[in-house]
Amino acid sequence: MDSRRSVKSLEPFFRPASVAVIGASRVPGKAGYNIIENLQGMGYRGKIYPVNPHASKILKLAAYPDVKSLPETPDLAIIVLPPAQVLKSLGECAAKGVKAVVIEAVGFGEMDASGAKAEARIKKIAERAGMRVMGPNSVGTINPYTSFDSSLGRLKKVFLPRDKIRRGTAGFIGQTGLFTGVYLPLINSEIGISKIACLGNKCDVDESDLLEYCGADPPTKVIAMYLESVTDGPRFLKLARRIIRKKPIIVLKSAVTSSGAKASETHTGAIAGEDRVYDAAFRQAGIIRVGSFEELWDVTRAFVCTTPPRGSRVAIVNLAGSSCVTAADACVKYGLQIARLSPATREKIKTVYPEWWQVRSPIDVWVSIEASGFEKTYVTITRAVMEDKNVDAVIAVMGANNWLDGKSVPGLFTDIRREFPLKPLFIVSMPGDWSVYLKMQRGFQNIGIPCYTRDEDAIASLAALRRYRQYLNSAD
Amino acid sequence: MDSRRSVKSLEPFFRPASVAVIGASRVPGKAGYNIIENLQGMGYRGKIYPVNPHASKILKLAAYPDVKSLPETPDLAIIVLPPAQVLKSLGECAAKGVKAVVIEAVGFGEMDASGAKAEARIKKIAERAGMRVMGPNSVGTINPYTSFDSSLGRLKKVFLPRDKIRRGTAGFIGQTGLFTGVYLPLINSEIGISKIACLGNKCDVDESDLLEYCGADPPTKVIAMYLESVTDGPRFLKLARRIIRKKPIIVLKSAVTSSGAKASETHTGAIAGEDRVYDAAFRQAGIIRVGSFEELWDVTRAFVCTTPPRGSRVAIVNLAGSSCVTAADACVKYGLQIARLSPATREKIKTVYPEWWQVRSPIDVWVSIEASGFEKTYVTITRAVMEDKNVDAVIAVMGANNWLDGKSVPGLFTDIRREFPLKPLFIVSMPGDWSVYLKMQRGFQNIGIPCYTRDEDAIASLAALRRYRQYLNSAD
Repeated sequence: MDSRRSVKSLEPFFRPASVAVIGASRVPGKAGYNIIENLQGMGYRGKIYPVNPHASKILKLAAYPDVKSLPETPDLAIIVLPPAQVLKSLGECAAKGVKAVVIEAVGFGEMDASGAKAEARIKKIAERAGMRVMGPNSVGTINPYTSFDSSLGRLKKVFLPRDKIRRGTAGFIGQTGLFTGVYLPLINSEIGISKIACLGNKCDVDESDLLEYCGADPPTKVIAMYLESVTDGPRFLKLARRIIRKKPIIVLKSAVTSSGAKASETHTGAIAGEDRVYDAAFRQAGIIRVGSFEELWDVTRAFVCTTPPRGSRVAIVNLAGSSCVTAADACVKYGLQIARLSPATREKIKTVYPEWWQVRSPIDVWVSIEASGFEKTYVTITRAVMEDKNVDAVIAVMGANNWLDGKSVPGLFTDIRREFPLKPLFIVSMPGDWSVYLKMQRGFQNIGIPCYTRDEDAIASLAALRRYRQYLNSAD
Repeated sequence: MDSRRSVKSLEPFFRPASVAVIGASRVPGKAGYNIIENLQGMGYRGKIYPVNPHASKILKLAAYPDVKSLPETPDLAIIVLPPAQVLKSLGECAAKGVKAVVIEAVGFGEMDASGAKAEARIKKIAERAGMRVMGPNSVGTINPYTSFDSSLGRLKKVFLPRDKIRRGTAGFIGQTGLFTGVYLPLINSEIGISKIACLGNKCDVDESDLLEYCGADPPTKVIAMYLESVTDGPRFLKLARRIIRKKPIIVLKSAVTSSGAKASETHTGAIAGEDRVYDAAFRQAGIIRVGSFEELWDVTRAFVCTTPPRGSRVAIVNLAGSSCVTAADACVKYGLQIARLSPATREKIKTVYPEWWQVRSPIDVWVSIEASGFEKTYVTITRAVMEDKNVDAVIAVMGANNWLDGKSVPGLFTDIRREFPLKPLFIVSMPGDWSVYLKMQRGFQNIGIPCYTRDEDAIASLAALRRYRQYLNSAD
């Protein structure tokens, strides 16, 4: 293995004491402005050195004409120049002794053959100088624990004010800028962040490096990844097998390879074959593979919020008969079983129904709501199934409509959640009214109950928790 | 075929001149109160006869002690009594000469064997009297074109004020109350309603009857169904093959049979086999099968909003490289192709990028947004691909974040939409901010552009439009 590769060599990407922004700009909206604005907005306490030959001050900071004029060697350099200027600048970083560089400039391997050639040169410069390079075409990193943010989007008052970034337990590693851009507010509010790193073209730092880093990072408890390729399969799988004993790893692997979406025009057959290899390898390593960004958020949120179930028997408490059926379908599809309720549980449930009702599993609550009201129905039945030893996990389905106060509903479940810490409880809240749903979702999540709009999303996430537990058990 | 069965025999369920509510109640929240409240809220102009032996007035209407005391034979009777009283009441309807009855009472075949026996008797009474019966366990019907609503949920100020129900072109037929309850506001605002009918246990009126009715109903242009079983397969398929020439039929068929979710506990194998039979039969008839309620809304909305594409070549205009890849994956999965752009199109697109950029398909717009801004980027590129003869449909992916004004974005696409009426355009707007997304969604829909949160949802819907067109072509 390359001797430069170590967890320690990646520290400057997440906790640098000083950072140079090469290509710093006075123009709001330019990447070289945004990065400094973001760092200041986060409250980053290290030194920031704007590098720009045509400016003396940028965002109230003294600017320097080039890297060699900097008063010290920065822990990290961030390059946001036009592609033609990147190699020269990287050489200057090497000369100055900079050990870590994020190249956020674009126009390299993702673009054309000459870009790919330039990348090979970047790699050579990095190796010769003993530098770690993330990118090119990286959108940067975020670490709320050190108030560090090297990402380039114009984010203050745009995507998310930087002081609002929430310290959480999920590390996001991806070949995409979506984690620090469009999806950031959603990741932030729904999941919370331990680290975000956008790999870009993986000229040097790759997904294995960052997986190892997050594996060793104390705040990170769950690792979520978006990958278009895996640079070193054996290393990645070896690391994954080790890390997974402590932290679940959830991967969205798109089916196309390094040439990006273009491959899907012409090479579908080959890709489908390769994809099956990924599938098998991931499964053997215990990696949880998901099929879309939305499933990546769903499953990650479930791991962050709650605990894997001890078995596969699911009790479903459901608003409508048809939804009992579709939820049961989804359980079967994802390898879970509908729980058979104990006689004692049935007796407890009967108390909220009219005399003539027959209790079944899944439990259809419509008639009970009419007879006993929403609160008594859901609290009584949910508690009964949480208490049942024949039940390993509970999914309670309700609607999110005007007639429910989205803010107060989660509170009905606080005690139940607290009393059965080892049994996961999921909520599905079908949105008639989105504002009601969003309030419910936040409230439930705050007490450790993941909440979804679609039964299948909840069930797929629960099944992922279950598979993780099964993997750990089988690997014991 | 049963001689009672005719499209005309179903008219009273949707356009009765008079209706008796048997089991009418003075207690707000009870089904027998809600039905009258809903009818009044809709502005229904026919006669309403509350039937209740213990009341003289209900909701300002004169009440009658029983059916035989009614001053006329109502076109429709709605029964909302406890299960034990239903048979007697049905007999009284038969004696009075009522030709159509909705039994909204529950506690029959969906409950237990004795309930199933009672259903057999309902069927016999109906046949002998030449009555059509919808239900039991039906949640009623809605027809905004006659301001008629027999549904039992407490809907005024709860799910949706009845005068807000929007006349649309989609007919919903289902073995579920979700269409008139939880999901009603969503169906109403996103799709619009021509008819809604909740079949219940299908003692007499079944999905084929209602399919035939909607097939002959002028306002209905698209038919959406949720089915747990098909009563008469050959009849259903024969009708579908005929109706599909004029109106697409979209079906969510859950995998379990009449015994509901319980079957999934024990009979998974058998069901999976039967499910494949449904799959093949539906495909041969040109029915579009979907896998979830959400997909039912997504696909129905696409048919209501826009037009089927002439071919399978899709141009994707996309915010992020990773999202280009996942969208291309989804196109391949759903049998669509990524369009190869003509040289002229590439030239038009180049104008919004820096000199060094290479145009590819899918089209990654991040660098263009930085160089030319959001509006110029999306308008120029979307127009270019809409003009391209190598392109049959366009999917434009963007984010829904604070920095976009959700209300004004759709307006940028109005002209493009108008100039190319035969080429479907879909928007995917990935929500960082839900309130921005919801504004965009409504705005886009109003101009004939369906808008989704997930690329896969848009692509699955587009693929459904495409399959419909292919079916019509092959059947010509």
